[in-house]
Amino acid sequence: MTTTLPTIGRTTWVVADGYIPPQSTGPSPEMTSHDSVCMLNAGAGDAAVEMYVFFTDREPLGPYLMRVPARRAHHQRINDLRDPAAVPVGVDYSLVLHSDAPIVVQHTRLDSRQAANALMSTIAYPGG
Amino acid sequence: MTTTLPTIGRTTWVVADGYIPPQSTGPSPEMTSHDSVCMLNAGAGDAAVEMYVFFTDREPLGPYLMRVPARRAHHQRINDLRDPAAVPVGVDYSLVLHSDAPIVVQHTRLDSRQAANALMSTIAYPGG
Amino acid sequence: MTTTLPTIGRTTWVVADGYIPPQSTGPSPEMTSHDSVCMLNAGAGDAAVEMYVFFTDREPLGPYLMRVPARRAHHQRINDLRDPAAVPVGVDYSLVLHSDAPIVVQHTRLDSRQAANALMSTIAYPGG
Amino acid sequence: MTTTLPTIGRTTWVVADGYIPPQSTGPSPEMTSHDSVCMLNAGAGDAAVEMYVFFTDREPLGPYLMRVPARRAHHQRINDLRDPAAVPVGVDYSLVLHSDAPIVVQHTRLDSRQAANALMSTIAYPGG
Repeated sequence: MTTTLPTIGRTTWVVADGYIPPQSTGPSPEMTSHDSVCMLNAGAGDAAVEMYVFFTDREPLGPYLMRVPARRAHHQRINDLRDPAAVPVGVDYSLVLHSDAPIVVQHTRLDSRQAANALMSTIAYPGG
Repeated sequence: MTTTLPTIGRTTWVVADGYIPPQSTGPSPEMTSHDSVCMLNAGAGDAAVEMYVFFTDREPLGPYLMRVPARRAHHQRINDLRDPAAVPVGVDYSLVLHSDAPIVVQHTRLDSRQAANALMSTIAYPGG
Repeated sequence: MTTTLPTIGRTTWVVADGYIPPQSTGPSPEMTSHDSVCMLNAGAGDAAVEMYVFFTDREPLGPYLMRVPARRAHHQRINDLRDPAAVPVGVDYSLVLHSDAPIVVQHTRLDSRQAANALMSTIAYPGG
Repeated sequence: MTTTLPTIGRTTWVVADGYIPPQSTGPSPEMTSHDSVCMLNAGAGDAAVEMYVFFTDREPLGPYLMRVPARRAHHQRINDLRDPAAVPVGVDYSLVLHSDAPIVVQHTRLDSRQAANALMSTIAYPGG
């Protein structure tokens, strides 16, 4: 690709409906129920992303540190995060992401609790 | 979490496609068909939310009063509301939410009328 | 409801992914595959909406005239429109809606071609 | 249609969550798992669209050239693109679209890996 792309996106993003379905049907890992944040950094420099997880009845967890290299996509399953702590399954949460470079964030859930999987997706809310 | 987060969100939100599917397949309550508003209050003070339900052929119902504490998520199933009245199932509606502090709202439906559940989700429309 | 609500929404809305799945599984009309525009008029006056349907290989159809009364929701299945012409099933299209008063539009599809239904929804694009 | 429509949309759009499910259940092509960008050009002139595909671990692919004629919809399955190269299935990606005229872009996935299909859709992020 020879074209120079302009920097695209925002530095703060919110996902209000977070939830990892606690059961799955089908082969792992592709059909495992999951909640993902899909990030694009279309810019020329790497992006350092800090994510916080908000709950109904306890203080937020975080920061979760993620790096999205320049000109790269990074789709992060919330299920796979371990540092500073795993995000509990079957529990309502919300996410706030702060990046030091503009990115774009889309939120997607795959729910395979029943015999055929369900999907949902939305652009996240660009907060800043 | 030691970082101070900026206040994020808006004070008016709209969900145009409200509907509670009138049947369900699978264990209750997790697989019960439902319509939810998922709210995040990332700020330092509590948020008082007033929600109105608009119908096709009658005056709006409300306000439904919900409190989202500071730094907390609150996912509210519309099915579970009782005051001032239950929202009828199997009926088209729309929602308007007003908050006295900035919040972010995402709308999600789980429909388990048939043998495997379906999901849909969208960021709500930030009206104000 | 005694509170006066502010006028909320926009007067132009776009749905880029229109498609009516051509088969259905389950009881009619609730499980019939359909594409819907869900509109809310939260204002004090009625809204007159003109909708145009754009296709891949022919001139747009329209206007389709819809009225959303003051303080009312109106969920319109595209399948049910007949004037000026039925929208063909199994064909790609896009929608543009113009309203003479602010409204909010959400687009939802129920696809029951296979044994369990699928759902998708998104806030429409506020064009004006 | 006799009304002159105003030009609607934006010239840069982002889809962060790209993925073509690698298996399908049901008749081809309508039930083949796919990822689509659905574009509307409601304007009076044709739109030339350049799309770039971003990956997790390699340089972006592109440009993919698409033309959306004046007053036309164009729903493009990512699976069907061949020039400059097919987009690999079962791989995470993101999309950036640049158009020389305003368009509106919605992203939709049909996933028929299991016995009944799942759907997800969102308005893309308008980056410019």
